[in-house]
Amino acid sequence: MRADDPVGVSDDPGWQLIEEIPKCETPWLRVMEEVVATPTRSAGCRWTVARRPKAAVIAPRFPDGTWLLIRQERIAVRRTMWEFPAGQVEGRVTPESIRATALRELREEAGVEPDGALIELGAFFSSCGFTDECMFLFLADCVRASLEGATPDHDEAILETRRVGDSELWEMIATGEICDANTLAITARLVARGLIRPAVGV
Amino acid sequence: MRADDPVGVSDDPGWQLIEEIPKCETPWLRVMEEVVATPTRSAGCRWTVARRPKAAVIAPRFPDGTWLLIRQERIAVRRTMWEFPAGQVEGRVTPESIRATALRELREEAGVEPDGALIELGAFFSSCGFTDECMFLFLADCVRASLEGATPDHDEAILETRRVGDSELWEMIATGEICDANTLAITARLVARGLIRPAVGV
Repeated sequence: MRADDPVGVSDDPGWQLIEEIPKCETPWLRVMEEVVATPTRSAGCRWTVARRPKAAVIAPRFPDGTWLLIRQERIAVRRTMWEFPAGQVEGRVTPESIRATALRELREEAGVEPDGALIELGAFFSSCGFTDECMFLFLADCVRASLEGATPDHDEAILETRRVGDSELWEMIATGEICDANTLAITARLVARGLIRPAVGV
Repeated sequence: MRADDPVGVSDDPGWQLIEEIPKCETPWLRVMEEVVATPTRSAGCRWTVARRPKAAVIAPRFPDGTWLLIRQERIAVRRTMWEFPAGQVEGRVTPESIRATALRELREEAGVEPDGALIELGAFFSSCGFTDECMFLFLADCVRASLEGATPDHDEAILETRRVGDSELWEMIATGEICDANTLAITARLVARGLIRPAVGV
């Protein structure tokens, strides 16, 4: 995984930033109006882009095959959601800092640590029509409860954790109880890589 | 599917907007600083939220079982991506306007029309940590080429379309060639509902 080419796919040449106008900025969001030359539009194209820090998402699996989900209040959507743990990379984005983020979020949000491999599953873009937000995906196989337990940041309002088997995970996806991009995207990657069995009956 | 409760999951009471301060606005993005009471934090919690129009994502499948993907220049991420068609709902968000959006995007972006069912697959939130963007998911089963062909908006820069079988779709997901939340999320929902077979060997 290259931090400067997170999805590991080289693209056509021809992308170039011609102009950028800052519109607003917070510590977690920079909105820019950009004029960008693309491979087919060399004169440039004007677009509003929400720049966001890179992040890691981790699917923690216990030796008995159950998955750990966290339940978290999500202010932007006014909902309490069941999701896999995730968090933003602090400082410079490198393969090492991304893995360190995954381990930190496992420890802080989920209260677990890997007792097996931390398997890279590539990355995805959460909404490539308007933001550069990119999430790096990991399977933490064979996790165990850490001695400290979870120590979530109060701002994140993680209410509880829960262990679910494959069939319950699939049921929660089918009914829409799981409805965040992170958990859905990592599950699709797990299926594609043969790391989780599909719903029974498929 | 209720347009005011897109994922069909009722939530705890206790969510209330206390204050909002507009930070910046474009036709497709409104950034607000909000103070919101949550079920566990009644005094309210300050958060920056990027408000976005609702949208539809459609997985078009031909009678022979192949899926239609479009290749599109994505300025925010400086990449050309293979994705399922998607587009924003114009005007009021209702179950009817969401379905109409799905049909419009099938026609305009993919040049196809359904000759079978347009199956609702619920919705998902693309990045619930900072945006309310919500995507409604559909399987368009048994599509056929429309007489008009695709008529994409020039701004969208759709370069080509391509038909892939299940195994090629899974391969593109496994390798990271497919790396947008829309296509990954809809594929996870399709697996969970038993509407696509997993990668061979799983």
